[in-house]
Amino acid sequence: MHDKLTQSHNIHPVQIVGAGPGAADLLTVRAVRCIGQADVVLHDNLVSADILALCRKDAELIYTGKKYGDAIDPVERQQHIHELMAEHAANGKKVVRLKSGDPFIYGRAAEEVRYLQEHNIAFEVVPGLTAGIAAASLCQVPLTERNRSKAVLFCTGHTANYDFEQLEALANMLRTGTSLVMYMGLSNLPKVIAKLQVAAGAETIYVTAVSQVSAPTQQTVTATLSEIEAALTSRPLPMPVVFIIGKYADLL
Amino acid sequence: MHDKLTQSHNIHPVQIVGAGPGAADLLTVRAVRCIGQADVVLHDNLVSADILALCRKDAELIYTGKKYGDAIDPVERQQHIHELMAEHAANGKKVVRLKSGDPFIYGRAAEEVRYLQEHNIAFEVVPGLTAGIAAASLCQVPLTERNRSKAVLFCTGHTANYDFEQLEALANMLRTGTSLVMYMGLSNLPKVIAKLQVAAGAETIYVTAVSQVSAPTQQTVTATLSEIEAALTSRPLPMPVVFIIGKYADLL
Repeated sequence: MHDKLTQSHNIHPVQIVGAGPGAADLLTVRAVRCIGQADVVLHDNLVSADILALCRKDAELIYTGKKYGDAIDPVERQQHIHELMAEHAANGKKVVRLKSGDPFIYGRAAEEVRYLQEHNIAFEVVPGLTAGIAAASLCQVPLTERNRSKAVLFCTGHTANYDFEQLEALANMLRTGTSLVMYMGLSNLPKVIAKLQVAAGAETIYVTAVSQVSAPTQQTVTATLSEIEAALTSRPLPMPVVFIIGKYADLL
Repeated sequence: MHDKLTQSHNIHPVQIVGAGPGAADLLTVRAVRCIGQADVVLHDNLVSADILALCRKDAELIYTGKKYGDAIDPVERQQHIHELMAEHAANGKKVVRLKSGDPFIYGRAAEEVRYLQEHNIAFEVVPGLTAGIAAASLCQVPLTERNRSKAVLFCTGHTANYDFEQLEALANMLRTGTSLVMYMGLSNLPKVIAKLQVAAGAETIYVTAVSQVSAPTQQTVTATLSEIEAALTSRPLPMPVVFIIGKYADLL
């Protein structure tokens, strides 16, 4: 049963596409096809040049990420992206909204999907490889392993703001072998480490930090929770960095 | 510094490749290339026919999954896979070990990597889309969302065996909005649901069950924790099914 109100106006569905961790050959085949057919590509700052090179020569590429030092309010920036999607779709363009990693892992895709739904704009979402999972395979850090790590938790540096109850939950997870994949800025690290040390108690917890996952410049530093800050001070890693943390989060 | 002992014997590295959730166009470009060049492909039962069709016509395809009713011990089966990889690699073949989803999310890749390392066999691991993340994008269930779900936990039906302390940890996670992506057989569901109901207390928790993620036969059932069993009894879903569970795990 279709309600008239829910019929979409646009000929081509807006495609919200996960661009994966960075390497062009870690895009899905479906993502490559979407990118290669797009009239307009709205892309974030972490989408690599190799990936943007897959766009048609005559495609309009619009950078929608944060520029260093710009004073744009995040809500306003997001609203602007929504309007760009709507405007170009209404003009009959094939619009790709290209997001690094996977759209639904820290990607604000939920907000974009809600906007498109509310405005009766047809769309589809194409999943992508999230950097943490790609890092695990590329560096051989097991995320789960039979009889060892039964679960893996994806979280952010905001973990540092967890209250006591949440931190206790995390402590239990860590003690029972769950790995954490943490997306955060390096500046958050000291605060997170301190909290995790409290949570982990006497357990030895490893941290593997992977910089620029899947790029030719990919680098990895592994140390224990108590040694990782010093390790990253003596060998600073370029951003972005993902962290895999846990009893079994050292390299195989 | 290379130790002679750690030099590998094989010309072509064994490629442990994530085959993604099922649809051939949700393979990564790198995975397609590996599969198309392989002399020998060792594949599991969840790898779709469309994906196997990407193998060379003269490639040797070896099914290494469980056959219904076979009496092979899992440890023995795994050992046999290791030996097949080693044997074909030693014979100069391009070997692809093709695993559904991502190799390091419930894929036993860690065991295979350890074996290859111990036997000085060169290898690489190619990440893949895990079914739970693909399901989220394809059905529009947000896994994380600003100010709502800050984290997402990948776990299995073994959660049902959690002790009280682990269950308390899970309860805290659920109450603070963390989504669970759960890989399990439907037969585990009643036990897991009962445990999660205890853990969730008075919170309304949604369950979205996605059957045969990314296949033309993909189906989705969403209900609350207290209603999901009845919903799946009246509309049984074909295997495999992944479950997304949480305060915000209903469809957008």
